[in-house]
Amino acid sequence: MAVTTTLAARTGTAFQVSQGGTLRVINTYGSQVVDTWAVARQEPQHGLSMAHTRAMLGRLTVKAGDELVDDRRRPILHIAEDTSPGVHDTLIPACDPVRYQQLGRKGHHDNCSDNCHRALAESGLPDLLTPVPAPLNLFMNVPVNSDGDSVLLRALTDVVVVLPACPQDLVPVNGDLQQPRDVEVRITDAPGKQAEEPS
Amino acid sequence: MAVTTTLAARTGTAFQVSQGGTLRVINTYGSQVVDTWAVARQEPQHGLSMAHTRAMLGRLTVKAGDELVDDRRRPILHIAEDTSPGVHDTLIPACDPVRYQQLGRKGHHDNCSDNCHRALAESGLPDLLTPVPAPLNLFMNVPVNSDGDSVLLRALTDVVVVLPACPQDLVPVNGDLQQPRDVEVRITDAPGKQAEEPS
Repeated sequence: MAVTTTLAARTGTAFQVSQGGTLRVINTYGSQVVDTWAVARQEPQHGLSMAHTRAMLGRLTVKAGDELVDDRRRPILHIAEDTSPGVHDTLIPACDPVRYQQLGRKGHHDNCSDNCHRALAESGLPDLLTPVPAPLNLFMNVPVNSDGDSVLLRALTDVVVVLPACPQDLVPVNGDLQQPRDVEVRITDAPGKQAEEPS
Repeated sequence: MAVTTTLAARTGTAFQVSQGGTLRVINTYGSQVVDTWAVARQEPQHGLSMAHTRAMLGRLTVKAGDELVDDRRRPILHIAEDTSPGVHDTLIPACDPVRYQQLGRKGHHDNCSDNCHRALAESGLPDLLTPVPAPLNLFMNVPVNSDGDSVLLRALTDVVVVLPACPQDLVPVNGDLQQPRDVEVRITDAPGKQAEEPS
């Protein structure tokens, strides 16, 4: 069974993906950064860790074929496909209220940190991401194009993947137009489970 | 008032440093990596964040003059001096039991993650570092030399600094001899407080 949904610009959502299932993130407009978190559904105190992933890969960025690990160095996601041409950042934290204050914004600005906490709360999973860990910034530093680049992530355990479509519009993180855009997300069960629930 | 103490090889200790005070880490044998954590004493849920520090500095490594920030992008430590010639890593996580298992070690091996938790527990501060955040790896990637390179850190708020002398002896992180060594640590109060407590 496959479900396709739209992640609206400036928002964040938590997606449940069972072991072996996949989640495809389609960069519909080609310029949207998607900060990506994942926590193990059964052990939500453990989640995707960029520092441990860098150490395991011996690289600063990730690419198709890589297994991404949690803070126990245990594989949690597999990058099954990557049709994008560029770099997925592992170094930069999520945007947060302080970042927008520093950029001169008075008052509220949507931000990935708050969106992450809200999405986790709505998913019913205990929110143990305090502070929010450094995410995998899908499509960050990628040249703007409009091909609908996508990344296919495979769950190596039962996970909750939290995806915000980054609302950053004060610096050109989300393309030169500084315009947060919608992103398409497609979740597919593991092959074994497809048989149980034919689409 | 200044206090000098030795951080024994393979162990970790938490040091209290009040705002404006300094902590000098002296790489006595020139080859020892010191994973460095710091948490705000009044708000121990917030601590030094390598991801936020990289974003604020726009660099992957730190150098003298830099202000290092916590997960709220708030300055927490200042690198007041750095007599070492090299790189202080911001990218790699602390060693942990899994790391040594992966290197083929059967049974217990001292590790910085456990040493960090133990040191925080002994300091009486609530241990909110779960999982242990990526530390500032002082002297990591620095060529071996025996000059007693040192780094002087100034507390920008009241902090607890946690320092393990990394026990990694299965790969040449701590010099080509793979020999964890003692490290000297010197803590000095802020100038204003020196007047109150003359040495």
